[in-house]
Amino acid sequence: MTTYDDSNIFAKIIRGDIPAIKLYEDENTLAIMDIMPESKGHCLVIPKAPSRNLLDASDQALAAAMPVVRKLANAAKTAFAADGVRVIQYNEAPAGQTVFHLHIHIIPIYEGVALKKHAMGEVDQETIKADAEAIRAALD
Amino acid sequence: MTTYDDSNIFAKIIRGDIPAIKLYEDENTLAIMDIMPESKGHCLVIPKAPSRNLLDASDQALAAAMPVVRKLANAAKTAFAADGVRVIQYNEAPAGQTVFHLHIHIIPIYEGVALKKHAMGEVDQETIKADAEAIRAALD
Repeated sequence: MTTYDDSNIFAKIIRGDIPAIKLYEDENTLAIMDIMPESKGHCLVIPKAPSRNLLDASDQALAAAMPVVRKLANAAKTAFAADGVRVIQYNEAPAGQTVFHLHIHIIPIYEGVALKKHAMGEVDQETIKADAEAIRAALD
Repeated sequence: MTTYDDSNIFAKIIRGDIPAIKLYEDENTLAIMDIMPESKGHCLVIPKAPSRNLLDASDQALAAAMPVVRKLANAAKTAFAADGVRVIQYNEAPAGQTVFHLHIHIIPIYEGVALKKHAMGEVDQETIKADAEAIRAALD
């Protein structure tokens, strides 16, 4: 069993050591924009409690995070009139995990629009900031 | 907002109207084998409470289901020495949803082995039953 390493990028964002485009935050959970989105509105829900992924996550962290996943999924769908939403969570590198702090992808789906490959190049920051504003407005 | 229709196949399985290869069951949650697996050990966690998908799910149903998702993900990974696990949940048909009762896919990942297309043909039932036995053994 590999142990949690708090030098990962999401731990740094949770600690406030590096910036992120935040959508929602409470005591247990943070939601941010994915800066390498696979589709318009792609965002991430990140439990603050340290765990590498779902395999070592606590019941409490999951119970706190999932209502935020639901809220963000609905908000992103509404904000961009998406046709659906895919919720994906990767465990271990062969499954596609790249940051080893539990995070849940919320990926709006648009009919006839293929997903971009993740991590294949950042979308410009101004676009992502504007998208974040639209999601925040739909959260209220 | 489309409303929940309890004639879907998972509602029938929960009611006991049709059979399934069960892995786990408690008051709130059922886990079964996917009979059209994308990889060896592909299984599903299904909250018993009626909701079309995550978008209309209750906090309670999610809080009850996610520890089962974690347990099954670990058990499937252990049972087949998988290299990782993908957890996927589809909302609405354009996103890939085919049964309109909330369910969460647990898909073991094996390095160098491509996933099969979902719903492209059933694996033989004896294999799936044997795989289910291996997951149940790893759950204990």
